[in-house]
Amino acid sequence: MEKKNLIIGQSGGPSAAINATLAGALSAAAQSERVGKVYGAFHGIEGVLRKNVIDLTGFREFEKLAATPAMALGSCRRRLPDDLMDPIYPEIAGKLRELNAGWLLYTGGNDSMDTVHKLSAYFAHCKTLHPEAEYPVVYGLPKTVDNDLPGCDHTPGYGSAARYLAVTVRELIRDTAIYALPSVTVIEVMGRDAGWLTLAAGLPRFLGEGKPDIIALPETPFDEEAFLTEIRELHKTTRSIIAVVSEGIRDASGAYVGMGSKSGVVDPFGHAYLSGVGKYLEMLIKREIGCKVRSIELSLMQRCSAHIASGTDLRESFEAGAYGAREALSGVSGKMAVILRRENPEGGYSAAYGSVDVSLCAGQDRLVPPHLREVYDPETQKEIVRYLLPLIQGEPPRFVDENGLPDYIDWLKLEKTRD
Amino acid sequence: MEKKNLIIGQSGGPSAAINATLAGALSAAAQSERVGKVYGAFHGIEGVLRKNVIDLTGFREFEKLAATPAMALGSCRRRLPDDLMDPIYPEIAGKLRELNAGWLLYTGGNDSMDTVHKLSAYFAHCKTLHPEAEYPVVYGLPKTVDNDLPGCDHTPGYGSAARYLAVTVRELIRDTAIYALPSVTVIEVMGRDAGWLTLAAGLPRFLGEGKPDIIALPETPFDEEAFLTEIRELHKTTRSIIAVVSEGIRDASGAYVGMGSKSGVVDPFGHAYLSGVGKYLEMLIKREIGCKVRSIELSLMQRCSAHIASGTDLRESFEAGAYGAREALSGVSGKMAVILRRENPEGGYSAAYGSVDVSLCAGQDRLVPPHLREVYDPETQKEIVRYLLPLIQGEPPRFVDENGLPDYIDWLKLEKTRD
Repeated sequence: MEKKNLIIGQSGGPSAAINATLAGALSAAAQSERVGKVYGAFHGIEGVLRKNVIDLTGFREFEKLAATPAMALGSCRRRLPDDLMDPIYPEIAGKLRELNAGWLLYTGGNDSMDTVHKLSAYFAHCKTLHPEAEYPVVYGLPKTVDNDLPGCDHTPGYGSAARYLAVTVRELIRDTAIYALPSVTVIEVMGRDAGWLTLAAGLPRFLGEGKPDIIALPETPFDEEAFLTEIRELHKTTRSIIAVVSEGIRDASGAYVGMGSKSGVVDPFGHAYLSGVGKYLEMLIKREIGCKVRSIELSLMQRCSAHIASGTDLRESFEAGAYGAREALSGVSGKMAVILRRENPEGGYSAAYGSVDVSLCAGQDRLVPPHLREVYDPETQKEIVRYLLPLIQGEPPRFVDENGLPDYIDWLKLEKTRD
Repeated sequence: MEKKNLIIGQSGGPSAAINATLAGALSAAAQSERVGKVYGAFHGIEGVLRKNVIDLTGFREFEKLAATPAMALGSCRRRLPDDLMDPIYPEIAGKLRELNAGWLLYTGGNDSMDTVHKLSAYFAHCKTLHPEAEYPVVYGLPKTVDNDLPGCDHTPGYGSAARYLAVTVRELIRDTAIYALPSVTVIEVMGRDAGWLTLAAGLPRFLGEGKPDIIALPETPFDEEAFLTEIRELHKTTRSIIAVVSEGIRDASGAYVGMGSKSGVVDPFGHAYLSGVGKYLEMLIKREIGCKVRSIELSLMQRCSAHIASGTDLRESFEAGAYGAREALSGVSGKMAVILRRENPEGGYSAAYGSVDVSLCAGQDRLVPPHLREVYDPETQKEIVRYLLPLIQGEPPRFVDENGLPDYIDWLKLEKTRD
């Protein structure tokens, strides 16, 4: 049997676990006799188009790669055209042929699955026209800290971001509790449409810490007046109020909070100044209540803090990558690997893996379902804990370099020297 | 010999290591036969004035306390009056007498040392008037992430904040390197007057990573035009530029960057909007260069991220607390414990401990010395590494609660139930 090569790329935003999925796929590919070379494409589909690839056939440092933050192969944000007759498709097909590619594994979130969807549809179309020809399998490996891919219980990357948030919010609760003066701290969390990360930031409360005091999901309309009233009420019984808010909270009309007409912020250069919602709420509280107030944007640290990654997330992300690679190697195209939750009769948590049609994911968001949005309801809180807590368990593996700092796999540096 | 009680309080801003110093002092007090009760004063000197204290005599969970972020006893920002004839002094003395206090240990930075200075001076004055009477020993235990206390090699808390910065900046370097497009990321770091934390954020570069590309200390005048020119120049050879800037950078005239007359930012409510310098530089780059740009304020996470604390810092902070308590128990008043660096003839790093007159510290800042400010000079970089690297070595001890999250000592909750 003639061997074919396996190409793997990463796309979209980074996470602390996307390299674990890459490691899992590489590990499965290394065990297959059908795979000739394994190539990593730098910057996703761009790397395929430019044949900017790295030979990973002999690579075996899977655990260290899994503990490396961000994307060892780089990313891109290129969206393929909807029209499958566009000349980009035969161009990509030609490059894959030159690379003797039997399989293209593509890792990312909703947008990246759009690429998987279109490429697999294109090759399926070609196969109809040329049934005798062979076309590469195109398979999606999931990744998103936002946890918003349909068809899964949770996504690779979510558990690590959730663990970062739960641990960091607990530290911030203690940092802000030290003074006897009333204060408000607004913590802005990623997740423009889906509130999964906001739930994770709320976990200290769901576990009985009493804080954060306010938890604002993007799925629940946000009322500024009610927010201010709540703060005034809370200050009667607590000094240091913590509010965790999604970056994407909207008012009842659907407009992003702080982005409406009333936000007249102008930068020093006279341009409209787009602050995050945390900063907006800070200014609102300062003006309307006047107490000590601070906003904190957890920014990229939410998605790249490999040092506090969830061991469970890294393991499952690795397994999802390995499962997906095996699926692809067995000929499954146009699908994406998903992590499912096994219903154990004796209770306890364990994960299972499956494939879903990638058209289910492309451009679709999985929001926090209505029954998990009642974040102040004790029964809902228990259910959130049951869902979330198993996903953030365990330490990441620790690799230490000669300086006593985390040791990483740095392929992007190699790419730089190529350019 | 009649036993006296030991009172300990915390003051100023938190760090990941101030509770380690508390733990060290408690451990030393537990070994002394001269100490009756050990009381923790909630919210520093306020707790003494209100006799809002917790009995810690039997407490032995020193290691877990050392791994607890922020301030287990809470803080205050009260500045005692300069006039030692002020009635607050006999009031404090009276409360300490009611508590049968033989020793007051006070932990904090420059401002807290001002309290130690004044109280010890007050009691020395009393002793002159009443030589036969006994007055409490007042002794300072150092703490500041800013590393700006005079008389020491480095301060408890600095190593942990530095480790957080070095690890986080390395993660951000990877997170921002993934795209093929030119970008700038401005990372704003604590330290309004002293650039020690900015040096820590620059460590990846000093260790040979090539980034951060730009490192702006508050000790070095900042020129906006030169900064923009440097970015344009750097973009010729690198995609993702990282600039780490101190929150306190100033222009040649000494004015804080972004806070001068040209900053006309107005918030949605028409008030002057005080953004941090990171956000200001983001807007400047967006306007003048127009590339993708983001600013990240590392905010309180720099000082409270116990999960990535430096094991060396926690150990030394503990030792400094124990050393200081022993000094105080031997009758030394009006001094502060300091961490020194032992000059080992065979090379290698080890710490030593000493006492310095607290008047040396009160209200004084120790800046980055001129010979360490040439951050782009390879010889200077080696010297910074030699100074800094030993301070950020080692993992913190890990205590895990029933939810798989870090386990802490939470005395502030106890205080809440008292109020």
